[in-house]
Amino acid sequence: MLEEQEKLYFQDQWPEIATLCWGCGRDNEHGLQIKSYWDEEEGVCVWKARDYHMVFPGTVNAGIIASILECHCGNTAIAHLYKEEGRELGEEPFPRIVTGTLKVKYLKPVPIRTPITLRAKVESISGKKITISCSVLSKKKLCAIGEVIAIKLGA
Amino acid sequence: MLEEQEKLYFQDQWPEIATLCWGCGRDNEHGLQIKSYWDEEEGVCVWKARDYHMVFPGTVNAGIIASILECHCGNTAIAHLYKEEGRELGEEPFPRIVTGTLKVKYLKPVPIRTPITLRAKVESISGKKITISCSVLSKKKLCAIGEVIAIKLGA
Repeated sequence: MLEEQEKLYFQDQWPEIATLCWGCGRDNEHGLQIKSYWDEEEGVCVWKARDYHMVFPGTVNAGIIASILECHCGNTAIAHLYKEEGRELGEEPFPRIVTGTLKVKYLKPVPIRTPITLRAKVESISGKKITISCSVLSKKKLCAIGEVIAIKLGA
Repeated sequence: MLEEQEKLYFQDQWPEIATLCWGCGRDNEHGLQIKSYWDEEEGVCVWKARDYHMVFPGTVNAGIIASILECHCGNTAIAHLYKEEGRELGEEPFPRIVTGTLKVKYLKPVPIRTPITLRAKVESISGKKITISCSVLSKKKLCAIGEVIAIKLGA
């Protein structure tokens, strides 16, 4: 695990067009403001829910888990495209993607007051399709797994 | 479509244990507060996003769509169990379910200032597994489809 001062958060590098997303936008004050960074080949996000992100007191809502997973996978895909193209994170043009499919399998309840760790990996790129897998952990226990297929836009 | 005064919203009937959910809880002031009702065999939800539920200005975030879909499917499953058991919505004991899997396929961007309609249907019940399908529409255009497998808890 990297020390705090060494981490380069993807979302802090994105140009203005990508700063308002409810999931990760640094300028969306009502959003979840997740932050993602590289740990070797994995995009990692450590995020803490607010108490009101519950399904019932003490347990994180399944939609919130789907939301942070979807957004973190998208950010990891974009960072991967920068890496593949040998460009610095945030350089223009910003790679545009949309989410095509999202799948989440819930394995255990996620406690709300413990930081949640997401570990995502680009599994394959085929044409415009980028497949990203993601694990959701709480205190190192695997609580959910998911997959996003993102679609590259543009040429 | 039912007139406003005829609708019996599931979430208005639920006992206190189910009123704090971030997706649908009537007592969660920071939540999405979706409302679901029966239209024949389909659970219907009409919901309007706030501007900050965006991915970028004007378009609803994919995580928000996954969240309302997951929550509305869960509510439809619970209402279905009440119907199957011949009980009034909200009677104790409240049927307890958890979401096992969530799948969403995104077909079109969802405009943020237009009400979103979700139409969910219980497709099958097999043992403790309840499979619910759901369509996401904006101005009658199909924008996403999804499926939730919910698991009944308890005896």
